[in-house]
Amino acid sequence: MQKKKIGKNVYIPMPMSILGVKVNGKENYMAVGWITRANGNPPMIAMGIGNRHFSLKGIRENSEFSINFPGENSIIETDYIGICSGSKTDKSKVFIAEYGELMNAPLIKECPLNLACKLVNIIELPTNSIVIGEIIEAFCDDNFIEGENVNFNEMKAFFLTMPDRKYWSFGNEIGKAWADGKKYQTK
Amino acid sequence: MQKKKIGKNVYIPMPMSILGVKVNGKENYMAVGWITRANGNPPMIAMGIGNRHFSLKGIRENSEFSINFPGENSIIETDYIGICSGSKTDKSKVFIAEYGELMNAPLIKECPLNLACKLVNIIELPTNSIVIGEIIEAFCDDNFIEGENVNFNEMKAFFLTMPDRKYWSFGNEIGKAWADGKKYQTK
Repeated sequence: MQKKKIGKNVYIPMPMSILGVKVNGKENYMAVGWITRANGNPPMIAMGIGNRHFSLKGIRENSEFSINFPGENSIIETDYIGICSGSKTDKSKVFIAEYGELMNAPLIKECPLNLACKLVNIIELPTNSIVIGEIIEAFCDDNFIEGENVNFNEMKAFFLTMPDRKYWSFGNEIGKAWADGKKYQTK
Repeated sequence: MQKKKIGKNVYIPMPMSILGVKVNGKENYMAVGWITRANGNPPMIAMGIGNRHFSLKGIRENSEFSINFPGENSIIETDYIGICSGSKTDKSKVFIAEYGELMNAPLIKECPLNLACKLVNIIELPTNSIVIGEIIEAFCDDNFIEGENVNFNEMKAFFLTMPDRKYWSFGNEIGKAWADGKKYQTK
């Protein structure tokens, strides 16, 4: 293969999620693709949130938030809450909020997987902040629980690529992790 | 849908990447799924790396590393370097290393997309460390460059789900971001 140097603002494939917060006592939602697991035990996630985003206010205010994974049937709503800011638009009625233990972590009823998180730390970077949260509770649609697994393929979780701004479905199962690599040793 | 409370150690869908470092002057590679973009400008990425991982030593030693995105044809090698530790196994010959500006950021020749990064910060969490790096240079296989975009679908980037330990291909394009949401407003 022939490689070329490209612009360094490279995006990587992103699992689409929705951040849920309360700001001034009202639910607000924001589409988030810059998210990863961050710590094993206790389980934590980390997100890169733009410093000017309204939702950061809610996280600072309450030290609680939710991460919700939508299915493909919520693409329009997920995209909508990514387009408009909670500073100008009331997004509290886009989804139905349910609550577990954390009263400032609105769990989106329409999303098959919900994580209720407590804030651990916010690391400020030039244009974004890394928000680190501990997963306190998790809820999943009964149809997609398989033992200890969430079946993300069946629940139709989806991905975003940028800057082409495309959403992608899960494809096919193409391999087994911690297994296929054993073939390398016998080469 | 009927929801159930599940174990809180929930993994989220992960884009598979390979961390490249030098430890004691020799290349080492590690499969990484806990990765996200972290800052917009300058472009940064963040990863959650287990505190006991050998590769962290290389990052601390040189403050440089690479992030490489493999195609499906490198599944066996990608899985292999995730199974065995560089503390016991010499993984320097699994891939061919090329170099840009950063002499401690081995760019994997076999991977269609390579990011050379300088360490910005390491945030220590109980079992993992969040490694934040600034993308200094990016290189892409000419076949997968489309203007400002990397065509991750064509380059056959893939995903990991856990704890079911499955690799998944990209599926179909199912929507347009910053576009489909406009349909919500006309509802």
